[in-house]
Amino acid sequence: MSMICELGYDKISIEAIARQAGVSKQTIYRWWPSKGAVILEAATESLGAVVAIPDTGDIVADIRTQLTAILDLITTTGFGPAYRSLIAAGQSDPDLLRALFDQIIEPNIQDFSARTALARQRGEMRGDADWQTLRDLLYGVVEYRLFHSMPLEPEYLDAVLEIVFHGVR
Amino acid sequence: MSMICELGYDKISIEAIARQAGVSKQTIYRWWPSKGAVILEAATESLGAVVAIPDTGDIVADIRTQLTAILDLITTTGFGPAYRSLIAAGQSDPDLLRALFDQIIEPNIQDFSARTALARQRGEMRGDADWQTLRDLLYGVVEYRLFHSMPLEPEYLDAVLEIVFHGVR
Repeated sequence: MSMICELGYDKISIEAIARQAGVSKQTIYRWWPSKGAVILEAATESLGAVVAIPDTGDIVADIRTQLTAILDLITTTGFGPAYRSLIAAGQSDPDLLRALFDQIIEPNIQDFSARTALARQRGEMRGDADWQTLRDLLYGVVEYRLFHSMPLEPEYLDAVLEIVFHGVR
Repeated sequence: MSMICELGYDKISIEAIARQAGVSKQTIYRWWPSKGAVILEAATESLGAVVAIPDTGDIVADIRTQLTAILDLITTTGFGPAYRSLIAAGQSDPDLLRALFDQIIEPNIQDFSARTALARQRGEMRGDADWQTLRDLLYGVVEYRLFHSMPLEPEYLDAVLEIVFHGVR
């Protein structure tokens, strides 16, 4: 991931990845179909621990905790540039886009589904709340501001959570 | 815009654009700094009429009307592929990303600001509602589903509007 920060996605080559890992290009290609796939795996690993949504019994606080950790990862590590590059490459590479969905989005859907199921049972949110659209809105707004190079400050999350939990009407 | 559908962004060249327009490459470069800038201008023009938010006195219906037109443009014309390509190219081209913000996002911010100011005055939504974050959420979720190749059906907008206007709590 540090290579993304130093070189940028376009300048990273399979050769450079192999050199840094101390293996041959052939070894890299044996395990990953493309440069994008190698970078996707590194990005997925760096997401690791931060993507779990905690359960303190307060769904708003728990989502804020998780999103704050994601914003921190995006703005202070190579994850942000790597993710932007992967989404960019994925717009003309359906295999990479699908792999990104399977490795990053799908586990988040599972986790979000489980946590909001508890929240709906316990009355932390409405029992009939549409958790799938709620999830799209939350992660969508983060990606929107990332891809348009708009500021991503932790306080912004309060404004987002206020709207999706209480509505503007 | 039809070239985007036929060829895809990567295969479009300034030569091909000049040939189709019946002018020289030099003429294209005199007016636009890059291929991305030409495609951005075509995308901005095709957005044209559909981006205006109507005013029938019902802010939810009016936003739904505008977003429905945008979804239609994305899913049935070259605008969708062009916009995806521009955002992709913009992740490693800050000038293009800024031009896209100025030409597409900024006019939308102005329009959304004006329409929601009326809505807040008239009680169509809360007087203290955070229209800027509301705007990010609405267009963010559309872009999120577009960039991840997730379905974008008009009925989906009802689910989005239900959450942002009424909240999940």
